[in-house]
Amino acid sequence: MTNKQLIDQIRLKQSFLCIGLDVDINKIPKHLLVEEDPIFAFNKAIIDATNHLCVAYKPNTAFYEAHGLKGWKSLEKTIQYLNTHYPEQFTIADAKRGDIGNTSSMYAKAFFEDLGFDSVTIAPYMGKDSVEPFLAFEDKHTILLALTSNEGAYDFQTQIVDGMELYKKVLTTSKTYKNAKNLMYVVGATKATYLTDIRKIIPDSFLLVPGVGAQGGSLSEVCKYGMTKDVGLLVNSSRGIIYASTGTDFAEVARVKAEELQEQMAAELKKV
Amino acid sequence: MTNKQLIDQIRLKQSFLCIGLDVDINKIPKHLLVEEDPIFAFNKAIIDATNHLCVAYKPNTAFYEAHGLKGWKSLEKTIQYLNTHYPEQFTIADAKRGDIGNTSSMYAKAFFEDLGFDSVTIAPYMGKDSVEPFLAFEDKHTILLALTSNEGAYDFQTQIVDGMELYKKVLTTSKTYKNAKNLMYVVGATKATYLTDIRKIIPDSFLLVPGVGAQGGSLSEVCKYGMTKDVGLLVNSSRGIIYASTGTDFAEVARVKAEELQEQMAAELKKV
Repeated sequence: MTNKQLIDQIRLKQSFLCIGLDVDINKIPKHLLVEEDPIFAFNKAIIDATNHLCVAYKPNTAFYEAHGLKGWKSLEKTIQYLNTHYPEQFTIADAKRGDIGNTSSMYAKAFFEDLGFDSVTIAPYMGKDSVEPFLAFEDKHTILLALTSNEGAYDFQTQIVDGMELYKKVLTTSKTYKNAKNLMYVVGATKATYLTDIRKIIPDSFLLVPGVGAQGGSLSEVCKYGMTKDVGLLVNSSRGIIYASTGTDFAEVARVKAEELQEQMAAELKKV
Repeated sequence: MTNKQLIDQIRLKQSFLCIGLDVDINKIPKHLLVEEDPIFAFNKAIIDATNHLCVAYKPNTAFYEAHGLKGWKSLEKTIQYLNTHYPEQFTIADAKRGDIGNTSSMYAKAFFEDLGFDSVTIAPYMGKDSVEPFLAFEDKHTILLALTSNEGAYDFQTQIVDGMELYKKVLTTSKTYKNAKNLMYVVGATKATYLTDIRKIIPDSFLLVPGVGAQGGSLSEVCKYGMTKDVGLLVNSSRGIIYASTGTDFAEVARVKAEELQEQMAAELKKV
């Protein structure tokens, strides 16, 4: 999917919502446990109920890997379901990978070619040759961790390097990578005011913003400091939507929660 | 596996060799392609031929994930084979994971409990709460990326932060994490002279050292600067051993290559 196609979807749906499919078997409604693949059944119901309200889905691969082969199968079925029934959705493998060149190439192949995701999240610690194998894929997107929404972000990401915080060094350096146009960045919503500085370095790049809702970030702050003329934002919500009800009405309640966010987003989009 | 058990194995075998099972279907001997699971068949043959010469095996998970479900199955069979037939081997899931707390817990469960690895490699970028869920597992080891052997290492890892290179900041900060005794570190052999400084920060921790052989590092340099009284080193070789021959004699040639390294290691161990 190209940036333009993503922006068109955002305009059409009046939404820049990404729904995180961080599906924990212990948190899904009990009545689904009789299904052959409860996690896929859960995802399918959530996707069918919410797809008109969001532009992206982001399964966190850890939640699938935790179930070994069975979990990997659920992930595969989920991405196949999305690509078959809702090809207009931007899909993100939240995998936070990164390794030396030939190994990153294997990961890129796994997520982009075999699974068919539009994008994958990448940790920047190993630098250029760990990121460029992902960037080499045409019309695929590499979402680099810059400033994450967890407390540990202060351990290294906000430390001063070369006159700037490490996450800014990551932004600055990554712009020099080959095919940098395919980069997006993770920037946590819990630090929305940082977005002013971030936009000075990467004025146009798409930002994937976790941490709105359950983690305490504010949507209007994120938009105030981070939105561009082409929107440039994907705001993720996981737990606040998918676990809003643990009853048989879970998909319907998820739809209501997604709609609340979509309406707030539509209001924000009117401002640009 | 405890540190003591690992050290005992090193003394017994006179080896601190780790063999990297970075198995690429395009590089394994053609005659294996008729097997039901060529990658597992390859691993089994390599393990059977070399286990008396090494103390650890390190499958890089990317190479397995690149084959989707089938690849995950090969990984599962490989670790099960090791745990059943060679339980004295220290097993490393070279996965380079790291995510926010609840997600890291899922990864820890996947690699330590479900797959039964002794250790997993972790990227430090997201800090404390991304690492501690792994450290919480008793008798399991978390191998944190410090200084990697690739060129991109210079992008961020060697940048000065708080008066020291970022990788030293990672070493220093990680020592304050809960259960830090379960930490080991990745330090690339291509930068062996850095080991003097590293040993000032972490005098006793085990280091996993990639980059000897194919990537150009020197074993004697690594030992000179990095070895402790309890050895404190696991030196990894992947391609130099497992792809030394692409004929039907691949396992035998791998054994010869592993033996060459083991003999050099035995000589180094005599010096401490």
